[in-house]
Amino acid sequence: VIVVLSGGVGAARLLRALRYVVAPSDVTAIVNVGDDLELHGLTICPDLDTITYTLAGLNNEELGWGLTGETWRVMDELTALGGASWFRLGDKDLATHLFRTQRLRDGATKSAVTAEITARLGILETLLPVTNDHLATRFRTEIGELSFQEYFVQHHHDTVVEEILFEGASTCQAAPGVLAALRSAERIVIAPSNPLISVAPLLQVPGVREILVERRAHVIAVSPIVAGNALKGPADRLLRELGYDSSALGVAAYYANFVGTMIIDDADAALAPEIRAHDMDVRVTTTVMAERDNASRLAKEVVA
Amino acid sequence: VIVVLSGGVGAARLLRALRYVVAPSDVTAIVNVGDDLELHGLTICPDLDTITYTLAGLNNEELGWGLTGETWRVMDELTALGGASWFRLGDKDLATHLFRTQRLRDGATKSAVTAEITARLGILETLLPVTNDHLATRFRTEIGELSFQEYFVQHHHDTVVEEILFEGASTCQAAPGVLAALRSAERIVIAPSNPLISVAPLLQVPGVREILVERRAHVIAVSPIVAGNALKGPADRLLRELGYDSSALGVAAYYANFVGTMIIDDADAALAPEIRAHDMDVRVTTTVMAERDNASRLAKEVVA
Repeated sequence: VIVVLSGGVGAARLLRALRYVVAPSDVTAIVNVGDDLELHGLTICPDLDTITYTLAGLNNEELGWGLTGETWRVMDELTALGGASWFRLGDKDLATHLFRTQRLRDGATKSAVTAEITARLGILETLLPVTNDHLATRFRTEIGELSFQEYFVQHHHDTVVEEILFEGASTCQAAPGVLAALRSAERIVIAPSNPLISVAPLLQVPGVREILVERRAHVIAVSPIVAGNALKGPADRLLRELGYDSSALGVAAYYANFVGTMIIDDADAALAPEIRAHDMDVRVTTTVMAERDNASRLAKEVVA
Repeated sequence: VIVVLSGGVGAARLLRALRYVVAPSDVTAIVNVGDDLELHGLTICPDLDTITYTLAGLNNEELGWGLTGETWRVMDELTALGGASWFRLGDKDLATHLFRTQRLRDGATKSAVTAEITARLGILETLLPVTNDHLATRFRTEIGELSFQEYFVQHHHDTVVEEILFEGASTCQAAPGVLAALRSAERIVIAPSNPLISVAPLLQVPGVREILVERRAHVIAVSPIVAGNALKGPADRLLRELGYDSSALGVAAYYANFVGTMIIDDADAALAPEIRAHDMDVRVTTTVMAERDNASRLAKEVVA
């Protein structure tokens, strides 16, 4: 089994690409829940949903988030009522949140609800939220402390971050199956997700980082930074603001204690010697998955 | 000011009819919350919403509930996911519940949220939920104890009721303005709502019944039973099952301690003498508000 430590969009694309080379039933994604939020009384899990929608073939490619064929009836009415509309929730997407929230109220865990939704959508990969307990990524910024979505969506990740906080990190426990999957995986892949805000919360869950350190030789990470820039989101800016090098080398340095192999983009081939100096193997390929051939090639490197 | 003790549809129609004869700003509705429910994490207030939608001219006349021009995108998706779909929530209607739930989570009271929604929709009547505390109508039935909506919607009020329970009745307090409105009203009107499940919860709130008893001469009730039948819902059947006469006379007997005047339908004129024996005045008119002339005539009797 291949285990993929996953944020949202980048992880979803990698998981989809893995279908070119591995049976979906042999893939387990351990998914970040630090971005999860409560809004309008609903429990919303953006990373789990992005992966679910992508693997179900229902993701909105043009928008880059949410569902294809989405409509906005509820949101339009909510806006007319004066409700909070900064976090856009489409009508189809809302059904997922209503379903999840009711099941959680019934006493089901986030793990159980995730399994129900993926089964219903015919997804054969296993999706595991990293924890069923409270774990919330927060930001100490120049304008005060912000929740993840306040920083990311409401402020368009356009404010200086001084520190990233992980609320609940000391008390949460790994969800059932998470540590066992990491221990027994043939390979552990860190998806090309934001190291500081998508991967870091996974590492905060007691046990996860320790297993990665132990199994470093089996851990492979795909750099989300290409030629110094994040393909999506604020990873490059955050790396700089928090004192890291905004490059595949900076990512490698951040991962060095628990990653044995880095996959970097052709554009960053010149960084390979410096990354090897961290006692890491380096593979160079096209990491941008926009085209089918690239995605397939990257997937082959990941499982090679 | 005219105060109307209100359930859902019958009260909404009476409130709308009152606009023929009274300025809307001189009307206060004290509204039942015993039917309110939590579903999918949302707080839903069917009686408040029915009145709100009707007074805003947005109610769905054909369906008899919900909003005009409603769509069902979220519900269709939720059903596809295997979610609970027995309580139908339209897309526009959902916006109300999302708005209310977020405001309640923000710490606003149900009273405050109701005022916000009615202001936004341009409603000039004052709508007061009878209490901001927990008050839930429940049913002990032949098939076990049921919540209001389980009885009403899921089981189509088609099971034998042995007892009606009011959870929270002993601990809830009247919402701000409720008791003062009842004390100072020129007239208190009991809408043609179900006596046992729409009006009874209002009477359970400490202070309400006592004021009605004191002010009995100013309290007027419109019978929701015409020729032995409820115009809508299970009022007739429930009256029988719980040992009351299923007639305007049965309603009068139930109300006799705190209602000075009964308005009954022409069809029930023969019952007037027996109702008068309860020391009540009786007015006879057409209580069915299907036509504009009837609604206007009923409203005139109510304020006469």
